[in-house]
Formats: sequence, structure tokens, C-alpha cells
Amino acid sequence: MAQQKDHNRSTARDRRTTPRTTPSDRWHTALTQIEPNKILIRGYPVDEIMGRLNFGEAIYLLLVGEVPTPTVGKMMGAVLSSSLDHGVTPPSTLAARNIATTGAPLHASVAGGVLAFGVHHGGDIESCMRFLDSGLALVRSGRSLDQAAAEIVKRGLDQGGTPPGFGHRFHTRDPRAARLFQMALELELEGDHIRMIRAVDRVLEARANSGEHPLPINVDGAIAAVCGDLGFAYELGNAMFIISRVPGLIAHAHEEQHRHDPMRQIDPKDHEYDGPRERRLPETRR
Amino acid sequence: MAQQKDHNRSTARDRRTTPRTTPSDRWHTALTQIEPNKILIRGYPVDEIMGRLNFGEAIYLLLVGEVPTPTVGKMMGAVLSSSLDHGVTPPSTLAARNIATTGAPLHASVAGGVLAFGVHHGGDIESCMRFLDSGLALVRSGRSLDQAAAEIVKRGLDQGGTPPGFGHRFHTRDPRAARLFQMALELELEGDHIRMIRAVDRVLEARANSGEHPLPINVDGAIAAVCGDLGFAYELGNAMFIISRVPGLIAHAHEEQHRHDPMRQIDPKDHEYDGPRERRLPETRR
Amino acid sequence: MAQQKDHNRSTARDRRTTPRTTPSDRWHTALTQIEPNKILIRGYPVDEIMGRLNFGEAIYLLLVGEVPTPTVGKMMGAVLSSSLDHGVTPPSTLAARNIATTGAPLHASVAGGVLAFGVHHGGDIESCMRFLDSGLALVRSGRSLDQAAAEIVKRGLDQGGTPPGFGHRFHTRDPRAARLFQMALELELEGDHIRMIRAVDRVLEARANSGEHPLPINVDGAIAAVCGDLGFAYELGNAMFIISRVPGLIAHAHEEQHRHDPMRQIDPKDHEYDGPRERRLPETRR
Amino acid sequence: MAQQKDHNRSTARDRRTTPRTTPSDRWHTALTQIEPNKILIRGYPVDEIMGRLNFGEAIYLLLVGEVPTPTVGKMMGAVLSSSLDHGVTPPSTLAARNIATTGAPLHASVAGGVLAFGVHHGGDIESCMRFLDSGLALVRSGRSLDQAAAEIVKRGLDQGGTPPGFGHRFHTRDPRAARLFQMALELELEGDHIRMIRAVDRVLEARANSGEHPLPINVDGAIAAVCGDLGFAYELGNAMFIISRVPGLIAHAHEEQHRHDPMRQIDPKDHEYDGPRERRLPETRR
Repeated sequence: MAQQKDHNRSTARDRRTTPRTTPSDRWHTALTQIEPNKILIRGYPVDEIMGRLNFGEAIYLLLVGEVPTPTVGKMMGAVLSSSLDHGVTPPSTLAARNIATTGAPLHASVAGGVLAFGVHHGGDIESCMRFLDSGLALVRSGRSLDQAAAEIVKRGLDQGGTPPGFGHRFHTRDPRAARLFQMALELELEGDHIRMIRAVDRVLEARANSGEHPLPINVDGAIAAVCGDLGFAYELGNAMFIISRVPGLIAHAHEEQHRHDPMRQIDPKDHEYDGPRERRLPETRR
Repeated sequence: MAQQKDHNRSTARDRRTTPRTTPSDRWHTALTQIEPNKILIRGYPVDEIMGRLNFGEAIYLLLVGEVPTPTVGKMMGAVLSSSLDHGVTPPSTLAARNIATTGAPLHASVAGGVLAFGVHHGGDIESCMRFLDSGLALVRSGRSLDQAAAEIVKRGLDQGGTPPGFGHRFHTRDPRAARLFQMALELELEGDHIRMIRAVDRVLEARANSGEHPLPINVDGAIAAVCGDLGFAYELGNAMFIISRVPGLIAHAHEEQHRHDPMRQIDPKDHEYDGPRERRLPETRR
Repeated sequence: MAQQKDHNRSTARDRRTTPRTTPSDRWHTALTQIEPNKILIRGYPVDEIMGRLNFGEAIYLLLVGEVPTPTVGKMMGAVLSSSLDHGVTPPSTLAARNIATTGAPLHASVAGGVLAFGVHHGGDIESCMRFLDSGLALVRSGRSLDQAAAEIVKRGLDQGGTPPGFGHRFHTRDPRAARLFQMALELELEGDHIRMIRAVDRVLEARANSGEHPLPINVDGAIAAVCGDLGFAYELGNAMFIISRVPGLIAHAHEEQHRHDPMRQIDPKDHEYDGPRERRLPETRR
Repeated sequence: MAQQKDHNRSTARDRRTTPRTTPSDRWHTALTQIEPNKILIRGYPVDEIMGRLNFGEAIYLLLVGEVPTPTVGKMMGAVLSSSLDHGVTPPSTLAARNIATTGAPLHASVAGGVLAFGVHHGGDIESCMRFLDSGLALVRSGRSLDQAAAEIVKRGLDQGGTPPGFGHRFHTRDPRAARLFQMALELELEGDHIRMIRAVDRVLEARANSGEHPLPINVDGAIAAVCGDLGFAYELGNAMFIISRVPGLIAHAHEEQHRHDPMRQIDPKDHEYDGPRERRLPETRR
């Protein structure tokens, strides 16, 4: 049932009888203020932001409303870089390439790729944030961390599903998840949500040791725990994945149109990587 | 006429008679290599990138193929931050909000907003890059910078249009363009394209002084000049705008669903900003 | 929790160890068979369908798998025509127009408009089909039609929502709903779902008589009841709305680009209809 | 260069100084008039249209503005049924299936599929309408039909492309094109555009007889010729394909989610048709 609909309906009706120019009739936005020759994002002139905050920090400012501390800014950058690309096989990438092969403009491929962020693909961050918070609620009502973890895992398995943020098609130890946890430790940004996901991980590892299918933490789970500790709204968890992957969709759509014939049939299994071999960042960047 | 179609058609036909497992039949990608527990973006492990390159630098690596120098990385960050948001009136923002008001998921609003990056909205970067290169071609064939600028402006006006990258609905002096040029100067990244757009600007200013409609450089023009000097492919010029604005679309879709009734009629003229007043970045960030 | 994910994961893994050319490895489709110079939709040559089934009947064949009887074909046509357009104020239409005003191609506007078919807009058909079936399940377990109707309405209101398929922003008596019920009667296609929605309508009318907000059957409710009686899958209920409204989105995107300046700010309240006045179909069509 | 931009910019500016309520300030639409309990499409009550015009005729009314004659209505239905579906290999279908496999809602798959109607896929109808009109312009300036056809083919080939509306990946004699021409003949709806495409066909056939790659008329070409003769605007030519194929996208997205595992890798070459065998319409429908 559409809960808010009725409410909306009546306000819509009331509005029509009110004169339109009343200030109270105006709708509000708190994001960006535009004046001639001035653009203020959350109060800060955009030209002051440019070159002083890096892109990840500027995104944090826009979404959360305040300038991040340098450590939070660094964590935000790592979260956003983590899902930049995952090769040609994700359905979002294939959707973008199938659109690109028709000669469509770049932004149409991006939009189509973004549409493939369905419940099974990139949608786990929000679910995992809620899942971890359900565990933290149990802790606040007296359970130990491990009890709470065991309880929410059991609850989930009883309903027949995998806990959100665990398991991966390709990886048994997701290098992105490991790196996010390492950085949270080093930057002293570990909080309740990371502790909770670690407790859940222990429960699932114990189950795997007694013969169950192993379900390691994946990148979505790690992002969810980090975003939970940074205080993000649930919906903005999924936003991290969208922002992170858009450059990947662009790179694939662009490569599709520049390296391949139009209107080709794209078989995700028949591809071969021919880019640079594994290499290390320059000394100065490590 | 669809030039490549016929070619495609015949390769498609040949392919069907070839056995599928031939290595030469495989299609190639040079972006990201996926192995179990390993993700290499342009050869670099993503977990090594995380925390060592900032998000703007990581995007540059993915799109261009190499780690940027620190100054190029800084410029890239400024370009990406420049178009983060422009309030509620751009059609892309209104498309995203109109989708959000129906209760659609976040990524559907983002996709719809991205679709509104049509030729009149965000599409000028690529056009302006081509426009500047047409001027630089004249320079290479012997014309002076100012002659070339005058010639491409005249050519454009004869065809009845505004030079791409000039003029703005709201701003007479676009603060983002000014900041990008200032940074290019300070970071010693000025090149031919910036010199050419400045020459075009002088031509248009002279015309404005003799009574024509003023057409100042806008943010698209500045991004085009910077991207030209950084050696980006034309199509990736527009990509800068897409990547930059996606967080803005997300912020608006999220605000729409959290501050407003569903199914409301969104009037772009009837809004009021109620966020923080103008403020300055903390000392440490300046 | 993502129920099917784990299953998928293991089959994906198994598949990789199986040789690719095994016939059992092939995936199946039962919609359309393509051979050189032959296109068979559900077994029928498309060139035999053309001119022999009308467009609504051909859509029914594709979605349901069999040629409809003439009365079912007529009902299908009425369902598909019912939501063809609803003026400029629906959010989907505004999304399409905001995309069109940027100079985007027609199909981008259509795609953006379709994205605005969120839970509060066109998504009620599927919900209402499920709602009516929950009532019919009660009938099968012994309740009378009126008892069942009262029970599902109460259950819905207890959860704080409006029953799906009831109430409308503009109409107190939706002419499209009335016409669909009249046609179902005349074509002798009334079934359990129409009887159930009528029973729910009686319950809500009684509530309105005792002072509650009136909630008449809307077009989504009527389509849901008709599609339920025709035996459609739930998800195809929403499909009826998508198919029906796409021509409306096209008409608005086309009008936007041909009658209005590009990049205008589209205010849904400030419009005026200037098309033909109310008129009647020619005698021969009545 | 963006021709209309400047004009738009100044009107936008003027508008802001004008009081908002002036009637002249209102923008106009001529499609659909909405009043409480009344929906008039092009002046006709939608509930009068339902059941009296079939869906194809109702679409014609909405797009063109008048009720079609029965023969035009029949032709319109055949055009709309012609491109209903083309199996699993078109990129639009693969984009829709790749979105569906992620668990996305039906309308997201449809939107993604529509985005794949790029210049090489469904975009030929508009190009072919313009191509035929360029030939008809030559006829009006004195050339014979065959001279004009030879001239526009030569002009096209000189620019290195295939004439739009000719050639197909799979079919050497497109059964849909043949059927549309047969119906146009029988319904006495043949006009200049059909005569022109036939003349072009003769030119290309002669070339094929002397050893060139054969380029038979495809369904896009036939639709273009028919729509040209029916007097459609160029942009609405492509609309025919969008409207026709949306049900196909729906059928594939629905089948994907009901017959296959989520998050599978969709290989367009590895599929097998397992629907009904070839069959004929019932006697009464022939």
C-alpha cells in the first residue's frame, strides 16, 4: 500500500486553492545557491572548492553538508576508488557496451549501465547498512556483539538468504574489502559498524569451518560498514557505488566504440585482456 | 549514411563460419584485468590505488591509462569539482527530481538526469574541443593565433550559431572558468588550447565592445581548453561533465525524496534556498 | 537478503568447469525464432500477423503466447488505449520534456519518461492485482466476497495506506475505469477480479458515506481487475501501463522540441491547452 | 554550433522580469486536455476512443491529430506490428536482459533497451525518410524517378555509406518489408515515397547484378517509405520503431527474470529457441 500517497493527494489539493506567490508556497532546497557569477555549494563558493578540496572531498561536502576532515576525506577517496571498474562481465558494463555498439552517445551508455544497478548488483550496500544497524540495535538492547551477530545471521539464513555484503562471484578474499578495513584502522576511523561486520564475519567463518559454503566479506559489505561509521544515510550507501562505477561505464563505452565494430554481438565470455601487465605505483605515490 | 554498417555486416557473417574457440576470435579490452582476488586497473592493483591516488587521479588513470603527475592530478580534480552542481534549474536536475518524486530508486533518477545531457546541456565540451582544434589547425598552416581565432569565430557566426563554450544563461563571468584558467597558470599547465580559447575570447570581446551580445567563456569552454591541453580524446571531454554532475543528481534526488511529498508538481521557478549562508573554507584548507 | 544469489553463484561456478559447447549449456527463449528471411513470433510468421491482427492483439500474442479471441483482443485494445496520455503534469511527462528541452534524441526522452514509472506512478497495477488476489484467496477459504473485501481493506488501512487502485489526484469518477468495466460487461469478460474490486469499492463507498475521504476506483485499479480476469502475470500488469503511455511520452517530447525554445524552464502549472475543442468520433466509428 | 541557444538565453532573461501570471507567459500544448473526470485526447474523450479505435488507430490520433481512415488505421497497425520483436540478438534486447538479470524492475529494463536505439539500430527510419525526400526534391526539379534514384544512391556511396533503409544482418529478403509494400498496394496507399524507394531498389539491384554487395530493402526502409506517404514528420518515423519494439523489450525482460538465474552472463550466441513450432493463424483470422 502506498502510504504517503493519500497525504500527498490532500496537500496537492490544498495547494491549488492557495495563491501561488505566497512565500510559504515556495519549495526549499539546501544544496546549492545560484546567483549571477556565484555558485555556492553548501555555502562554499565552488571556485574556492576547486583545487582546495579534492574531488572525493568535494563529493562528501555536497552529500553530507560539511567539509570532511583530512582522514575522512582520504577514506571517502578510497571508498569511491574501490568500485571504479570490474572488467567486462558485470551486467551494468554489458548493458553500457550493448548500448554503445549501436552508435549511441556516451551519456546514453552511462544511463543504461546505471539502470543495471539492480538489487543483485550494487544494491547490497544499503541492505548491508540496515543489516548492521539491526545488529547494533540488539547490542544497544543488551546483547554482546557476538550474540547480536549470531542472531542477525540466523534470522537472515532462516529467511533463506545470504547476508548482504557477503560472498562474491569471483573473489574468495576481496582485496578491496581488506584494503578498506586496513585504512579504517590506520586512519583511526573504525567504529561500531566495522566491529559489527567483523563479528558477522566470524560467525560465517565458523559456519564455513563446519562445512558450509564460505561467505567472505565483499566490497559492498566493507563500503557499508565504513559508510555506517561515517554516518551516511542508508540511501547514500548505494550512491557510493553509483559514483564510483560511472567512470568505469564511461571507459567501457568509449573503448567499445573505439576498438570494436558497431552492432557486434557482445559475448562476455569470449574476451581477452590486452592492456598493461601488472605493475606498481611509482615510489613517490606509495 | 551508416558508414561502418556494411563492414560490420560482413565480419558478422564471417564470424559465424569460424569456430568459436579460436583465440583470434576473442575480443579485447585493455582496461581492467580480473583474476580471483585480484583486480588490476590499467595494470595497477585497485587496492594499491585506494588511499594512494585520490578519486580524481584514479579516474584519470582509468580513462587515460597512466598515473597523472601531481599537478595534472590537481587540475583533474578541479575540472571534476567544477560542475558538481548548479542548483535546481538545470533540466537534468529537474528530470532527476521528477523521477524521484514518483518513488523511483536513486539510480533511476541518476540515469534519467544523465539522459538530459543533450546537445544544449553539457554537450558543448566536445564541440568546443573540436572548435579549438580547428583553430589550431589553421595556426599550424601558417595563420597567427589571432587570425585563426577571428576566422573560426566568423565561420561559426556565418552558420548562425554561438561558438561552443561561450555564453551562459545566468553568469556573465563564470567563476569556474576563471578558476580553471588561474589554476592552469599556477600549475604551469597552460597550452595551445588555452591560448586559442583566450584568442577567441578577445575576438568576441571586441565584438561585444562594438555593440554585439556579450559571450563570455563558460565552464564548458574552460573544461574543453584544459582537457585539450591535457590530451584527452574529444568524447572524454563530455565525460568530465557526466562524472562531475552525477553526485549533484544524487544529492537532488535524495533531497527530493526526503524533504518533499511524493508526486508533487515541481515548478523550477518557485523554489527558495534555505541551506547554509556563504562561508569560507577552514584556514587549513586554503 | 538476496535469496537467489547464492544459488546463482554456485551455478555460475559450475558452468565455468563445463565445456561451453554442450547443448545443455545453451540458454533458452520461447518468444521469437529468427531464421534468414523468417521471423516467427510465438510460432506465427510476423508478416502473417501484420494486417491480420491489430497492434493490441499482436502485443497480446507476444506477451501471453496465444492469439486472443476477438473479444479479448478488443478488451486488450481498450486497456492499452486507456492510459495513452494524461496531459503535461505527470512526472513521467515532465521528465521526458525536461530531457527533450536539452536537444536530446526522441528515444532518450522516452527512456527518461519510462524511468518515472515509480511506485507512486503506474506501479499500482501490479500491487492492485496482488491485492485483489489476496481477497480472492480469502473467498476460496470460505469468506463471502463482501467479507473478504472488508478484510483486505481493513488490513491495508491498518498498515496506514490507501488500497492500490483507488483514489486519484484529479478525478473523482475516473472515466477510463468506468469504460473498462462497461466493456467487460458488454463483452462478457467480467470475472472474479472485477467482482472483487467492485466489492472493495462498495466497502470504500460505505466508509466515504460515513465521512471518510472518498477513494473511487482509478484507471490502474480497473486495468488490474481486467488483467487479473484475463489471466495476466502480475508483472505484466505494469507492462500495460508502460506500453500504453510510451506514445504519450513521444508526443510530448516531439511537441516540446517543435513548439518551444530549447533549455526552457518547464513549469507544470503555467500551461494552457490550445488544441482542438471537445468533439465526437465520426458516426462510422461509434 | 548551437543555433537556437542564444535566442533562448535572451527569452529566458526577459521572462524573469515579466510578471508570472500574464496569460501570454503560459506555455501551450495541443495534445491532451485534462479536466476533473474528463480526458480529451486531441479533443476526443478517451473513454469514447476506448473500444472504438483500436490501439494503433488511437496512437495515430495522438501523434498526427486526426482519426485515421480505416485503411490508414490498418496500415498503421501493420507498421507497428512489424518490429514487435527480433529475438535475443539485437543490442537493445541484450541491454534490457542485462538490466533484468540484476533484479531491476521491468520499466528499468525497458528504458535501458530503448537507449540502445542508437544510430545503427532503429535510427534508419528517419534517415531514410530524409533520403527519399532528397530524391523527391530532385524529381520536382525535373529529374525522372530513375535519374533521381541513381543520383541519391551515387551521392551516398561517394560519401562511403550504405543508403539508409537497405541491407540487413540476417535477411536477404526482409519479409516485413515485402508485406508492408503488399499491404500498401492492396489498401491503395502507395505514394511518392514508395515509388522512390522502389526506384532506389532497382538501382541497387542493378549494382548487385554487376557484382556489388546486395543491399535489399529492409524493414526500416519500408516503414520510412510508408510513413513518408502517410505524411509523418521525420522524427515520428523513428517513433514507430520505439512504439513497436517496447512490447518486445518487455517480453524479453520478463522471460529473463522468470526463466533464468539472476546475475548470469548473457552470451547472445549460446541460445536456443524452445517455443512453439511454426504455425498458421486460425482460418477466421486470415
